[in-house]
Amino acid sequence: METNKLNRIYAKMKEQGLNQMIITDPVPIYYLLRKWIMPGERMHALYLNVNGDNHFVINKLFPQTEDLGVEITYYDDVEDGVEILSQFINKDETIGVDKNWPSRFLLRLQELGAGSKFVNGSKIVDKVRQIKDADEIQAMRESAKMIDEVMDKLIPWTAKGLTENELNAKCLEITKEVGFSGPSFEPITAYAKGAADPHHMTDDSKGKHGDCVILDIGGMWHDYASDITRTVFIGEHSEKQKEIYEIVLEANKRGIAAAKPGVKMSDIDAAARDYIASKGYGEYFTHRLGHSIGMEDHEVGDVSSANDEIVEVGQAFSIEPGIYLYDEGIGVRIEDIVVVTEDGCEVLNHYPKEEMIDVPEA
Amino acid sequence: METNKLNRIYAKMKEQGLNQMIITDPVPIYYLLRKWIMPGERMHALYLNVNGDNHFVINKLFPQTEDLGVEITYYDDVEDGVEILSQFINKDETIGVDKNWPSRFLLRLQELGAGSKFVNGSKIVDKVRQIKDADEIQAMRESAKMIDEVMDKLIPWTAKGLTENELNAKCLEITKEVGFSGPSFEPITAYAKGAADPHHMTDDSKGKHGDCVILDIGGMWHDYASDITRTVFIGEHSEKQKEIYEIVLEANKRGIAAAKPGVKMSDIDAAARDYIASKGYGEYFTHRLGHSIGMEDHEVGDVSSANDEIVEVGQAFSIEPGIYLYDEGIGVRIEDIVVVTEDGCEVLNHYPKEEMIDVPEA
Repeated sequence: METNKLNRIYAKMKEQGLNQMIITDPVPIYYLLRKWIMPGERMHALYLNVNGDNHFVINKLFPQTEDLGVEITYYDDVEDGVEILSQFINKDETIGVDKNWPSRFLLRLQELGAGSKFVNGSKIVDKVRQIKDADEIQAMRESAKMIDEVMDKLIPWTAKGLTENELNAKCLEITKEVGFSGPSFEPITAYAKGAADPHHMTDDSKGKHGDCVILDIGGMWHDYASDITRTVFIGEHSEKQKEIYEIVLEANKRGIAAAKPGVKMSDIDAAARDYIASKGYGEYFTHRLGHSIGMEDHEVGDVSSANDEIVEVGQAFSIEPGIYLYDEGIGVRIEDIVVVTEDGCEVLNHYPKEEMIDVPEA
Repeated sequence: METNKLNRIYAKMKEQGLNQMIITDPVPIYYLLRKWIMPGERMHALYLNVNGDNHFVINKLFPQTEDLGVEITYYDDVEDGVEILSQFINKDETIGVDKNWPSRFLLRLQELGAGSKFVNGSKIVDKVRQIKDADEIQAMRESAKMIDEVMDKLIPWTAKGLTENELNAKCLEITKEVGFSGPSFEPITAYAKGAADPHHMTDDSKGKHGDCVILDIGGMWHDYASDITRTVFIGEHSEKQKEIYEIVLEANKRGIAAAKPGVKMSDIDAAARDYIASKGYGEYFTHRLGHSIGMEDHEVGDVSSANDEIVEVGQAFSIEPGIYLYDEGIGVRIEDIVVVTEDGCEVLNHYPKEEMIDVPEA
């Protein structure tokens, strides 16, 4: 077990009067044990108790040969894993449950009366995970550097007549090429109308002269995610596109300038959003400013008007304002990842954004 | 909505005295609406009531342009989607919950008191999904035919000195080539010791002369999964491998012969398992005989000693006995998909299995 992280979790549990919880998602389990265990549809659960009486229940199809620093009980496919897990739980106390645990397991645990009350325990683990340590920040720095490189190699392909699906495949190919284990999310490579719809599904449309192209991409490096968005233009850009690009760029910079310890997450969102609104495009910026990132591309902790939590040193999140004019087929988003420092933030992505990029047509 | 499927769900709900449930997994939602909606981390829920008062709550990032045959309420990222959902639920009655719904949503729904009792509603939906209609069986037949073709193209590559990871990549390439939208699960391509460990993770080891190679592969075709396993040998096979192969083959055939309406799932498992045990290898067949399959590679309905449910016409599942001798580096598994008919079953896979395949070395 990662003692430092475990102790930070214990401290928060005690703070909130929660003595026991189960962690079941492979990501937080890896976070604590540094071991990937992917149980698929099968149940597994790491039981934590602030008194240190921890236990791991796993299907025997996933035998652990290394010492994970926690006692393991195996069950097989004809046994009821949740019932076996329930034996380790103090039934007279509240139990924290992993936010991602499929309901079928939680309903069974409740049926067994394994806990006086059931609450979302991930709020604690996620809060601890928000604050990255030096090793984590270093992995994210490297991951960001590599995704900058993918962006550089990908951009020329936006003006070569590929369909979105082909551009996507090319992106995945380059992502592998630079050394990522894989993408950190399904890349978004969208032309014109597709770019102007923030939840467009990649399809077989092709870009044409004058189109904007949104490239929102990320990779996994040493179990840490990167994420960057740039918007480029095929051949040349119009005056309208320039107007929108410059507003989004300024909003991105204002968001970054606002990211520092002690402010609220919602203040950062407002710094970007208010600027876009002041330019008359408020209603076309239809999503939150950003999301936390770490071992997963989207972690808990939105940079949005709804999140009044106070920003702390070590938090990592995206700053990604956008303006989407669907009728005109114009969509622009510019995204960078920042890590909060003592006096501001470090921007992990360095791919240029100041100048608009008109990609020469092949 | 697919009226026929919906009516079968209503009928089962009434049978069990459950008047309302929510479906949240994209697969059963597609099953009913024939529309893929992938909400990622965001909440969405299709509320069903036996009185026909259905409702769909979706995040506004996923606007639906077509008529889905159900009234939709949208919420945005600063609203509490679960609270909005709770307004449609009859709080004085039991509510069925999707087995895959992340606990964070269920815990919130319980906190809101939206239901007198919470039960796993997927048991009903999954039971309905087990019985495939003619269109579904046709899609699975086509999917099986295509995966047979992948197997045929893949086998020669087992003796060309590729690592498992390379063989895996080759498999995915061929899977795309024959027209699948993608694999139905991460393929298993394992040599010798890897083949002898049913939960081996694909790595960089290479096969050598005389190794067995397990190929467990599947594809998605028109939203239906295929799945097949064959075991082949590099260059030549040993007497011991032949002994094991023939036992597994006979167990596969006995499992298929036992698959018909009216028997228990556990009877089918026993038909194969007892034979392997009678040959002295019972302890080396360490998993269930099979799993249900349809829109997902693994659906609810194990072919195992623990499942005493009665087999019905239209059920589709795998028959996949195996023997794993880790110390000797021998693993053999032979898998076919069957669909239960009036008087037995139709085997969907036709790739040859009678003769052992010794793959010529390149």
